[in-house]
Amino acid sequence: MAVSDSVLRMTAAEDMCPQRLVLEHVTTRWGVLVLIALQERSYRFSELRRHVGRVSEKMLAQTLQTLERDGFVHRDAKPVIPPRVDYSLTALGEEAAGQVKALALWTDRRMAAVVEARKAYDETRTSS
Amino acid sequence: MAVSDSVLRMTAAEDMCPQRLVLEHVTTRWGVLVLIALQERSYRFSELRRHVGRVSEKMLAQTLQTLERDGFVHRDAKPVIPPRVDYSLTALGEEAAGQVKALALWTDRRMAAVVEARKAYDETRTSS
Repeated sequence: MAVSDSVLRMTAAEDMCPQRLVLEHVTTRWGVLVLIALQERSYRFSELRRHVGRVSEKMLAQTLQTLERDGFVHRDAKPVIPPRVDYSLTALGEEAAGQVKALALWTDRRMAAVVEARKAYDETRTSS
Repeated sequence: MAVSDSVLRMTAAEDMCPQRLVLEHVTTRWGVLVLIALQERSYRFSELRRHVGRVSEKMLAQTLQTLERDGFVHRDAKPVIPPRVDYSLTALGEEAAGQVKALALWTDRRMAAVVEARKAYDETRTSS
């Protein structure tokens, strides 16, 4: 099957696997939350940090830089005093956010079933 | 917005965030490849290892165990000699595989745009 072959070729070419990296960038804890936040509106750095919560300045800056380099986030530094930097999604970033949100929503919807499965699994292990 | 709030609550409850863990399990390098392989058909361990490629026995066993515990993979140990263990997707696992494959396909489709964006980003950095 073409699709699966293509995904599996990534593995064969592990060290040169750019798809893998993109998948990782958009599915990190902060990558997911930043993409979903920016899907609603653009944010200034400090606003975004408050909105996402619990993320260090350094980690948020790194997440934004990675997403900017991948072409998902647009960084708009306004030449004003005090300096003002707005972050928003590019068209490609809107797509990425849509994909990731679909996955996050699915995770939310199915969480109860997963918790149930884990409980059953752990009980089997304990009783055997 | 309900959805985003729900996703953001995960962050607030970082240590007790089961959604985050599920997202991580299905988007790891091997998690993605195992789910996509099992979407086609069931596999025996050694077959699956050859199919996925480059994965150590230990890592594949760990990936399968995690996916089994989450309720995505069914492990069928047949009482025969020599022992035979088949892995297949549960109904929940089919859903997970569908979600992850959609994301992997999107990554594949948009990879060229991402590579282009990275090149442009790196050039700006170098020239400034």
